[in-house]
Amino acid sequence: MAEHTGSPLVSLDPDECWRRLMSGATVGRVALDSGDGLVVIPVNFVVDGTDIVFRTAEHGVLGRAADWGRAVAFEVDELDDALRVGWSVIAQGQLRRAADDDAERLAKAVQPWAAGERRVVGRIVVERITGRLLAG
Amino acid sequence: MAEHTGSPLVSLDPDECWRRLMSGATVGRVALDSGDGLVVIPVNFVVDGTDIVFRTAEHGVLGRAADWGRAVAFEVDELDDALRVGWSVIAQGQLRRAADDDAERLAKAVQPWAAGERRVVGRIVVERITGRLLAG
Repeated sequence: MAEHTGSPLVSLDPDECWRRLMSGATVGRVALDSGDGLVVIPVNFVVDGTDIVFRTAEHGVLGRAADWGRAVAFEVDELDDALRVGWSVIAQGQLRRAADDDAERLAKAVQPWAAGERRVVGRIVVERITGRLLAG
Repeated sequence: MAEHTGSPLVSLDPDECWRRLMSGATVGRVALDSGDGLVVIPVNFVVDGTDIVFRTAEHGVLGRAADWGRAVAFEVDELDDALRVGWSVIAQGQLRRAADDDAERLAKAVQPWAAGERRVVGRIVVERITGRLLAG
């Protein structure tokens, strides 16, 4: 079953990972242990310094996790299935609720897709960022 | 900061979740605790019964996790950023290495993007599947 076809995987350095996070992608996925199994939740995000910021509902999985300060992974990718090229970036860090004085400014920058009140501004304080490029 | 705009979130029942996994999506993301933090790794996949199957390298994070039988979450989504509509499905279960007699058959069904030997066929035995629809 050896496979030697396909594209090589190349690691992206941290600067390149941040560049890709800031280059137009608006949807990422937050993975965390919800206490009831691992979950992966798509969110609209922005980069604020070296943090990743998104809005969520007060009593949802992400809102509760932000209050508790959970370890999370945040993933963004662009994968072209037809061309079999793409990249993915994973940022690992701590999810926190943004301080009140930050929350209003940040909330304006992130427009969630989903309806409903999304009062919590979650901030992932990134500790490590890695990425992989799949060149065509 | 209340938000009342945007699309309503609707839960998808398990049958609908499986239908979406089998309706043409070929890339999903496996989330797991690697022992060195949470990771989220894109893979090409197929559905085999009520399992999710993919190929990976022997000594990578997913290959090792398959040998150990780790709890994972598997996520697939289709999100249209321009239209702000889409859906996501999360399957939670145990990642195992496929039995040798299954591996050859399954390996032919899954064509990985990335180059290199990907001898391990990982099988996620799904225990719970949930989904959300973001209708326009």
